Amino acid sequence: MILEAVMLKVVAGQELEFEAAFATATPLIAAIDGYLSHELQRCLEVSGKYLLLVRWRNLEAHTVTFRQSPEFLEWKKLLHHFYASPPMIEHFELSIANPPSTL
Amino acid sequence: MILEAVMLKVVAGQELEFEAAFATATPLIAAIDGYLSHELQRCLEVSGKYLLLVRWRNLEAHTVTFRQSPEFLEWKKLLHHFYASPPMIEHFELSIANPPSTL
Repeated sequence: MILEAVMLKVVAGQELEFEAAFATATPLIAAIDGYLSHELQRCLEVSGKYLLLVRWRNLEAHTVTFRQSPEFLEWKKLLHHFYASPPMIEHFELSIANPPSTL
Repeated sequence: MILEAVMLKVVAGQELEFEAAFATATPLIAAIDGYLSHELQRCLEVSGKYLLLVRWRNLEAHTVTFRQSPEFLEWKKLLHHFYASPPMIEHFELSIANPPSTL
């Protein structure tokens, strides 16, 4: 399993609209083969900052299957205009989890 | 529930030692009242970079209960010398989760 982590900065004042659009976009990413789950987390310290965490079966499910899908075009159309700066996307593999059954 | 997210950069060459120390340190944080779970995630793109995700019942469980505990002194002693730069610590609250039962 791979964790995609994305730091998002949304244009000031558009946070509520962004969250609503994100809810609308959820079925697009959830339909992708290899998608497992995701969560959008709102930063307490920095207004307009979000951490998006997506769990994928493997790296290619994100970088190939999702990014080359028609769903990704829709996803970008719904969401990308909210970003104040280009999202910083990174992938991670699990080192340690506690309790081990969490993931 | 609050998510603590920390970007960590470990001194080059000390990654394996850091991960072993982190496993040793796990019971220290897991003993704190209000601690729920954590995961240490290893970056695929940047060597020595980690994302630490800790779930707390509320903000104070991290910022007060943990940080003022004797366990935190031990935690720092075990881990802080591995960091190449000061960890960037932020807190988040859930906006959207899919499937909703994930968290």
